[in-house]
Amino acid sequence: MTRPILALLTDFGTQDPFVGIMKAVVLSRCPEATFVDLTHAVPPQAVVEGAFLLERSVEWLPRGTVVIAVVDPGVGTVRRPIVLRAMDRLFVGPDNGLLSPIAARDTGSEVHVIDIARLGLHVASCTFHGRDVFAPVAAELAAGRLLPESVGPRTAELVQAAIPRPTIVDGVVRGTVVTVDRFGNLVTNIERAAVPAGAKVVEIGAARAALRDTYGEVARGELVALIDAFDVLEVAERDGSAARSLGAGRGTEVVVRPPSSPRS
Amino acid sequence: MTRPILALLTDFGTQDPFVGIMKAVVLSRCPEATFVDLTHAVPPQAVVEGAFLLERSVEWLPRGTVVIAVVDPGVGTVRRPIVLRAMDRLFVGPDNGLLSPIAARDTGSEVHVIDIARLGLHVASCTFHGRDVFAPVAAELAAGRLLPESVGPRTAELVQAAIPRPTIVDGVVRGTVVTVDRFGNLVTNIERAAVPAGAKVVEIGAARAALRDTYGEVARGELVALIDAFDVLEVAERDGSAARSLGAGRGTEVVVRPPSSPRS
Amino acid sequence: MTRPILALLTDFGTQDPFVGIMKAVVLSRCPEATFVDLTHAVPPQAVVEGAFLLERSVEWLPRGTVVIAVVDPGVGTVRRPIVLRAMDRLFVGPDNGLLSPIAARDTGSEVHVIDIARLGLHVASCTFHGRDVFAPVAAELAAGRLLPESVGPRTAELVQAAIPRPTIVDGVVRGTVVTVDRFGNLVTNIERAAVPAGAKVVEIGAARAALRDTYGEVARGELVALIDAFDVLEVAERDGSAARSLGAGRGTEVVVRPPSSPRS
Repeated sequence: MTRPILALLTDFGTQDPFVGIMKAVVLSRCPEATFVDLTHAVPPQAVVEGAFLLERSVEWLPRGTVVIAVVDPGVGTVRRPIVLRAMDRLFVGPDNGLLSPIAARDTGSEVHVIDIARLGLHVASCTFHGRDVFAPVAAELAAGRLLPESVGPRTAELVQAAIPRPTIVDGVVRGTVVTVDRFGNLVTNIERAAVPAGAKVVEIGAARAALRDTYGEVARGELVALIDAFDVLEVAERDGSAARSLGAGRGTEVVVRPPSSPRS
Repeated sequence: MTRPILALLTDFGTQDPFVGIMKAVVLSRCPEATFVDLTHAVPPQAVVEGAFLLERSVEWLPRGTVVIAVVDPGVGTVRRPIVLRAMDRLFVGPDNGLLSPIAARDTGSEVHVIDIARLGLHVASCTFHGRDVFAPVAAELAAGRLLPESVGPRTAELVQAAIPRPTIVDGVVRGTVVTVDRFGNLVTNIERAAVPAGAKVVEIGAARAALRDTYGEVARGELVALIDAFDVLEVAERDGSAARSLGAGRGTEVVVRPPSSPRS
Repeated sequence: MTRPILALLTDFGTQDPFVGIMKAVVLSRCPEATFVDLTHAVPPQAVVEGAFLLERSVEWLPRGTVVIAVVDPGVGTVRRPIVLRAMDRLFVGPDNGLLSPIAARDTGSEVHVIDIARLGLHVASCTFHGRDVFAPVAAELAAGRLLPESVGPRTAELVQAAIPRPTIVDGVVRGTVVTVDRFGNLVTNIERAAVPAGAKVVEIGAARAALRDTYGEVARGELVALIDAFDVLEVAERDGSAARSLGAGRGTEVVVRPPSSPRS
């Protein structure tokens, strides 16, 4: 049997022992587990940003991976804990939109609501379902002792995350910055296919970034736009921080015009 | 044989390669080891805070786990390196109070002083016993090649950590903030059982926090007090940082009165 | 067969999912892999600092470890991706100086340029060779399905990292701070053997630090110089941050004189 792989994405940070405690709970039930930390630095309670980062990462996870995703401002309230089967992987987390973009990418996806009582889970804390619900369910799924359809009733309705989508009017694409990476690069919601053919420049406020293939194609300190590792349009400053230089961040508008389009 | 699990708690941070080097040393001697990082962000040399976080995490670690705990301002001086057997787990670290709360929780606990010479350890650095002493000893324990009673002489006296304890006078509980988590939540030393029955409010300076079960039971921006994932009383701001809003932190006093008690 | 160990050193940070994605790619090809994170906090694009940290860490990695090292401002441009065999370990990364100090330490070292086309790698992004080139090559090497000499043509010329070296004139050693650790300790390029015998003090600007064996040998708040865990001279402030107190950092000069030498 291959080793079960569990990937984690949370807004817990790594300052506190919460991620370690979740892993300890998983290992108690599935000692062969191997972990992949996608990120624990989703901004606190930023469901949309978490959903974006997860959706952009999932294709790289080995098939069969069990993902624990916890960005959960509603922990302990009525939001439902769910298991999603999609893209040949399993996802365990809250039904608050965090997992909805993954479900939308697979027409064969299937969602079950975790029935805490039926599974006999001991919920020691109202505020830490990552430890008390998601980790044990993920461990049982990973160990092959639990099937997604056995965690609880199937549901067809999923809370949807409002990941902003770009608008395209007369060929002019208007998107927004969805997240800022550690280098200060501005990651947008404009996918590769949405960039107008032949476009050579990207507008961000009053600034202009040359559209290139790599960071190294502009001089130090210059702005550059490119299709990044997330396969979306990104605005960067070579050897610098575009976020700082432009005072830009989540929500900042980014515009790409087709070559024939006059600038506003 | 099950895979040996090694948990780590340090004040090393993850900026420097020190944690990775400790893991590398463990793997050199125990290639089957699996690691759980509890935290490496204990504030530098904050033994009491480290002791609190470890004591609050240990019950979630699988039995048999070997814990390496290093918050060690006295490294290289006279403080003793020890192995503690308690709560069906093993703990390796300095005798400076970091492990004393764990020892206190198990009447059958047993402490042995690591005899560096007897074990033939090569101490390459006076400042990095995590790498040169604690990691190799933990690896040998985890691999089953060394028993706690073989690391050196048994001792009955352990340096005690001064984790502050709340006072209770006329039913009024006065505790303090012990640590602040990544969300800015104020974690206190008041355990669940110490909270007066029927109390509905928690006082922190001039501010008042409603005592509830979950964060979601108050409106955004409001203070809430609850029993948190550490099973202690915590003061939080919904979707915000109580630490920032209240200017509170480690050492701030927190008061809970029984329902019949007049406010001061 | 022993479990393959992969060590990672990058400037990716852990805020973004990039490190996790690299590990996921490795596990897709080598499910038995165990990871050791040396650091992901090399300052963005600081090749020299990354080279120093890697060179100082490598001896602690088990023989046979495959290291993925990515500090790569030139990603997607003409710099070559390479595999280095040295010190009984394998290193995968860019040919920009990051690996040159390791190569210099082993006269039997051997470098091969990764032939992306020959290996049939799919480079999905011009900006993330860590995921598209280095991780899959490292995984195949770790799994034993690829030999270093099979990744592409051998090369004898390696781009050299300009790690500054101390000067010694009339016995007076002048070095510089190469990196600052999480405690604010100033780590220099002066190796243990270069410190003049009998020296008792280290000069850093107008400040003087007593040369001792451990941090605990001076009073709180005092400066101390010692040979640190990297086996180089370090200037620290006991229970404080020398970097902050002295306003010092990368590039700051540090001077050690032999006992007979008059102070300037």
